[in-house]
Amino acid sequence: MTKLNWGMIGGGEGSQIGPAHRLGAQADGNFVLAAGALDVDAEKGRAYAQSLGVAADRAYANWQEMLEGERTREDRVDLVTVATPNSTHFEITKAFLEAGFNVLCEKPMTMTVEEGEEIVRVAEASGKICAVNYCYSAYPMVREMRQMVKTGQIGKVRLVVANFSHGHHGDAGDADNPRVRWRYDPTMAGVSGQFADCGIHALHMASFIAGDEVRSLSADFASTIPSRTLEDDAMVNFRMEGGTVGRLWTSSVAIGRQHGFDIQVFGETGGMRWASEQPNQVFYTPVGGRTQIMEKGEAGLSDEAARLSRVAIAHPEGFPLAVANIYVDLAAAIRGEMRDALPSATDGLRSMVAVYAAVASAKAEGAWVDSRPPMLR
Amino acid sequence: MTKLNWGMIGGGEGSQIGPAHRLGAQADGNFVLAAGALDVDAEKGRAYAQSLGVAADRAYANWQEMLEGERTREDRVDLVTVATPNSTHFEITKAFLEAGFNVLCEKPMTMTVEEGEEIVRVAEASGKICAVNYCYSAYPMVREMRQMVKTGQIGKVRLVVANFSHGHHGDAGDADNPRVRWRYDPTMAGVSGQFADCGIHALHMASFIAGDEVRSLSADFASTIPSRTLEDDAMVNFRMEGGTVGRLWTSSVAIGRQHGFDIQVFGETGGMRWASEQPNQVFYTPVGGRTQIMEKGEAGLSDEAARLSRVAIAHPEGFPLAVANIYVDLAAAIRGEMRDALPSATDGLRSMVAVYAAVASAKAEGAWVDSRPPMLR
Amino acid sequence: MTKLNWGMIGGGEGSQIGPAHRLGAQADGNFVLAAGALDVDAEKGRAYAQSLGVAADRAYANWQEMLEGERTREDRVDLVTVATPNSTHFEITKAFLEAGFNVLCEKPMTMTVEEGEEIVRVAEASGKICAVNYCYSAYPMVREMRQMVKTGQIGKVRLVVANFSHGHHGDAGDADNPRVRWRYDPTMAGVSGQFADCGIHALHMASFIAGDEVRSLSADFASTIPSRTLEDDAMVNFRMEGGTVGRLWTSSVAIGRQHGFDIQVFGETGGMRWASEQPNQVFYTPVGGRTQIMEKGEAGLSDEAARLSRVAIAHPEGFPLAVANIYVDLAAAIRGEMRDALPSATDGLRSMVAVYAAVASAKAEGAWVDSRPPMLR
Amino acid sequence: MTKLNWGMIGGGEGSQIGPAHRLGAQADGNFVLAAGALDVDAEKGRAYAQSLGVAADRAYANWQEMLEGERTREDRVDLVTVATPNSTHFEITKAFLEAGFNVLCEKPMTMTVEEGEEIVRVAEASGKICAVNYCYSAYPMVREMRQMVKTGQIGKVRLVVANFSHGHHGDAGDADNPRVRWRYDPTMAGVSGQFADCGIHALHMASFIAGDEVRSLSADFASTIPSRTLEDDAMVNFRMEGGTVGRLWTSSVAIGRQHGFDIQVFGETGGMRWASEQPNQVFYTPVGGRTQIMEKGEAGLSDEAARLSRVAIAHPEGFPLAVANIYVDLAAAIRGEMRDALPSATDGLRSMVAVYAAVASAKAEGAWVDSRPPMLR
Repeated sequence: MTKLNWGMIGGGEGSQIGPAHRLGAQADGNFVLAAGALDVDAEKGRAYAQSLGVAADRAYANWQEMLEGERTREDRVDLVTVATPNSTHFEITKAFLEAGFNVLCEKPMTMTVEEGEEIVRVAEASGKICAVNYCYSAYPMVREMRQMVKTGQIGKVRLVVANFSHGHHGDAGDADNPRVRWRYDPTMAGVSGQFADCGIHALHMASFIAGDEVRSLSADFASTIPSRTLEDDAMVNFRMEGGTVGRLWTSSVAIGRQHGFDIQVFGETGGMRWASEQPNQVFYTPVGGRTQIMEKGEAGLSDEAARLSRVAIAHPEGFPLAVANIYVDLAAAIRGEMRDALPSATDGLRSMVAVYAAVASAKAEGAWVDSRPPMLR
Repeated sequence: MTKLNWGMIGGGEGSQIGPAHRLGAQADGNFVLAAGALDVDAEKGRAYAQSLGVAADRAYANWQEMLEGERTREDRVDLVTVATPNSTHFEITKAFLEAGFNVLCEKPMTMTVEEGEEIVRVAEASGKICAVNYCYSAYPMVREMRQMVKTGQIGKVRLVVANFSHGHHGDAGDADNPRVRWRYDPTMAGVSGQFADCGIHALHMASFIAGDEVRSLSADFASTIPSRTLEDDAMVNFRMEGGTVGRLWTSSVAIGRQHGFDIQVFGETGGMRWASEQPNQVFYTPVGGRTQIMEKGEAGLSDEAARLSRVAIAHPEGFPLAVANIYVDLAAAIRGEMRDALPSATDGLRSMVAVYAAVASAKAEGAWVDSRPPMLR
Repeated sequence: MTKLNWGMIGGGEGSQIGPAHRLGAQADGNFVLAAGALDVDAEKGRAYAQSLGVAADRAYANWQEMLEGERTREDRVDLVTVATPNSTHFEITKAFLEAGFNVLCEKPMTMTVEEGEEIVRVAEASGKICAVNYCYSAYPMVREMRQMVKTGQIGKVRLVVANFSHGHHGDAGDADNPRVRWRYDPTMAGVSGQFADCGIHALHMASFIAGDEVRSLSADFASTIPSRTLEDDAMVNFRMEGGTVGRLWTSSVAIGRQHGFDIQVFGETGGMRWASEQPNQVFYTPVGGRTQIMEKGEAGLSDEAARLSRVAIAHPEGFPLAVANIYVDLAAAIRGEMRDALPSATDGLRSMVAVYAAVASAKAEGAWVDSRPPMLR
Repeated sequence: MTKLNWGMIGGGEGSQIGPAHRLGAQADGNFVLAAGALDVDAEKGRAYAQSLGVAADRAYANWQEMLEGERTREDRVDLVTVATPNSTHFEITKAFLEAGFNVLCEKPMTMTVEEGEEIVRVAEASGKICAVNYCYSAYPMVREMRQMVKTGQIGKVRLVVANFSHGHHGDAGDADNPRVRWRYDPTMAGVSGQFADCGIHALHMASFIAGDEVRSLSADFASTIPSRTLEDDAMVNFRMEGGTVGRLWTSSVAIGRQHGFDIQVFGETGGMRWASEQPNQVFYTPVGGRTQIMEKGEAGLSDEAARLSRVAIAHPEGFPLAVANIYVDLAAAIRGEMRDALPSATDGLRSMVAVYAAVASAKAEGAWVDSRPPMLR
């Protein structure tokens, strides 16, 4: 199978996210890094791209040059990953879609609902793939849970309880650390802190597994470290279109929780739970029965789960390979095979609507707010 | 040390709660069952009491007879346990306090706030002990957590996250089972279902460990099984007097959770978590440091924790011995030694106020409601 | 039901084992402490017994006086518990059996094989109960495992892997502590240290669950702290009569293991594991299937498991109530109801044979040694 | 940094091990698959290699052709991975070393001790890298444990307890399945079954972490499924050069254990444990202190651990990236930077000596056997 050409914007030397994407794109041999505009410092970015094997003429100074350079090439990149600072996602994603490129955008896809709606429209008009990196949804056992709901194994979903809570911003003495501080400063982070940063991963996953969308929500935000303007802890109750009740807690001051992203899904005939720190198991309990430990790689899993696993049962596969699974699905989609579980521009839009709805609700002391995208109401 | 005389009302043959109290009272040799009115069926109750070693003249037909019989005896019971149906707790507890008996009342102490205030007044006037059986607070490691907060080991408490969620009422086909059904029927259970049944244990513990009281709350109730009038799932956000943020989830449809009562307490300089299914450990994380597994029975624990543990480190002690610890503290209190950590009538009142506040908030779409007892505002 | 009279020898003030037996005997209301010779210091023992409610004339100065005092009483004790130093178990147990008392003896039952055989003979001749306190076998879920083997749920047992390893004697600086030191000194502890202290619990449980007896064994002993004469770490391989392979590791220098007693049982059609630190669960895996978490108190367990559990599913019951279960079975046996799962004098003898066999094997560099009691070959 | 050229022998379409190596080699961008002889079916192998991006002239029909084709090229492969059937490892590895190639050989490196010694000699003479794929040793937290021993954090190592036990060959009905059967047939598997297949991973890790080598051992082998000639369960006791006691259990009939490779290391001042199913944590207990949960990615880990981790704390990294870490170290070694922790030909030899020693011991009823390589005694 011919390798696909891949281009990257952002993710330069020293970034955390860059290596995850490069490993993700290359691990399964689908993509070759063919072009890049990796750094705001044009020279650093060009040098680094070449050190990664990019040809000199495709090691660009910035995304605009890359857009110009690539759009006319025969061997133009098949996919562009946008891993720049949040506030630039919108314009870059939009520009590349309009020029006919497939795009994987880091989350959040945009900073406003209006921008989100614009991306959805542009993506549709372009006929190109626009995916958002909700990579947790690509763990094999998360896909399995989704299939279990879809095939009715736990009946109608009554209740989803999701957490994404850590304690890495819990040290008040560290609150002035620039790597932490910007997240709670509205001039840099936008309208929401912890909910926009982590909560939307959990909210996406709730919808992803339940196969339903959030209709309305009620939020309670707190800045437990007083110097913060934006919330570092949030509770969001929600209802889905089909009536499912949702509870979502997210925190960055939960000292002792390292990566506390976990989800419980309760239906009429069974319950399931999954945790990001032990992503290769699902604990499934049929109503009235015993809890069963499901293992990635066990016999009898769905094709979705089997397809995204590389090594035998109980040989753990971790976070970088969940990112890689997004690229596996992107490669398939580019090759025309499938794309149904890939997080889409609409998913990115829904997150943005949820962020603004939660902010509005929290300001209104928990009043329930419609969280459906205006364009989809 | 002379044994104390103990009397029991309710908890007859076949009841679940009776054996737990008898084991609890007798396990450490402090109390002797000396009197009882164990059953609504007077004859059955008298026979059963005698089979348990109660003398014939102290095996009473009902609580009124027991009150009359005991009040004039020289060797009257030192403690009365009230383990009758919920709606009778108030009058029995009140009557025995007024007659000068010490009382341990099962939860909920009363069915209304007004009754709760009445019990608080009567207990104060009587000078007698009136305790409520929030037995989880008597686990050694829960006491240890309380001491850790008190001595500043985690700094000011920012956030408490408590759950008491199980799935034992999750089978819709079983919803007509009388043992389940009454809990969701307002004519039998009162104004609240799951929150009043389990949630108040978690709310008490939050206050107990944090050393602070709930000031206001916002609730989201759901009846996920449609035939139910009262809630089978609830989320309650709250604020404590000192500003601590609280999150409390309780459910009876969380299929797969067996006894999902657990609590996380996050402060300025550390976090802790405890779970009722593994009650002999606390996971403690100092800010910026590694999680440490604290064990019941380890060297260096507080006197409170050490005093309430019977066997060596990692030899588990379970639920019945937590109940026994309530009796250990009652015996000490009766002997004049201490009583400070015993759940009190005021705690019982606070629970009732919280139940009514949560119901009101849920009806008002999550509006924040004052949850301080009127008599204590 | 009339309470049974109970007498205790040893277990005086300050002993660890005394409270466990008193709680165990009294928790379920079967026994009343009616007589005792609790301390080598006669006066201390008499005073302490009376403080526990024993009448003055049954608070004895020593076991010989107790034997004389009780044997002629109409209301003589129905059961005597022997909780004295190990080297005295034999003569006391023997004397009380010969005088027609039922006896519960702490482990080890004797110090030699010959003494063990003598007790077996005396017990048989007396027609009285002689039980040994292998209390872990009385956990409900351990009984359940035994029933599962008996009813063929895992097929023929191929392999048993048992550990009883802790680290509480792992501090060389603490090795001279008298509470630790005697265990590794042959003049006080006999021929074996850690294997005789903890290993025999694990070996008993292997036989108990598998429903089979050890035929031969091979041992590797080590004194990892050089000042010790006796072993502080041992590995014992064994074969049962029916061909089952056994592996048993025991250690007291496994720093970080608190109470590392756990067992895995593997049969033709399934496997199971149980751990003493989480005694209310069994992890059961049918061959080719998923691991299931079995819970104490769940529906459908065997009568044996159900009978020995007091509170609802997932309300943990711990070590003291496992001891109490031994007394539940003793009360039943005294009342003529059953006794089949009670650890017997023969079990006590088998342990002693295993200890001597392991010592002999370890000295012979792991040579396989017959470990069947000579009188049963 | 220029990419290195990589060649692969074996690991063709449908093999389990091939994708793991390809992902491992390519994940971090160090290697490019430049040549291959991937299949015994020459045409299939050539086609598959080309589908993976290998140029037609470097898609070889067999390893002999590949050796000829590569040895004279300017851009010859920098590393050859040997992932063929076990019995061919020796000759291929030897041939490529003699021709001046660096080699990564799958385990077992050889089928006999003599062959192992030959490889050690050839590797030394060649000055080239000869590594063996003991990939578990490349998990960051395993490297951390090794560093902790090296820097004295747990004092002198007294005891190592390692298990590698699964239940995937526990179904007797499946014993004739060709994928299972060959492992227990001496005509195909050699002298040992489960110990040679899995046990040597555990034995290597014991030495790797302890920083010491096995001197002698005693083994107990069992074929718990009677139709098997070779062992499916084994216990090996051993002693290291420095006196450390070792216990190693390996099984393939431990139904319910999925990938039960775990290790406990106990020293004078602390203990540690690690498990392959949760490879990103180490549980560390200082003597007399609490157990601490160490996390991959936490601050303050050794350079070795930090270097081999890609994503933030508690973002799990799994088995394929442990394999990738072997390639990270190989790339560094080829570039002249370091190689000290890479499993070497000598490690491969030691495993083979241990296999033969264990077989001899098991036949001699557990007699202790010297397990030092003859050439190193």
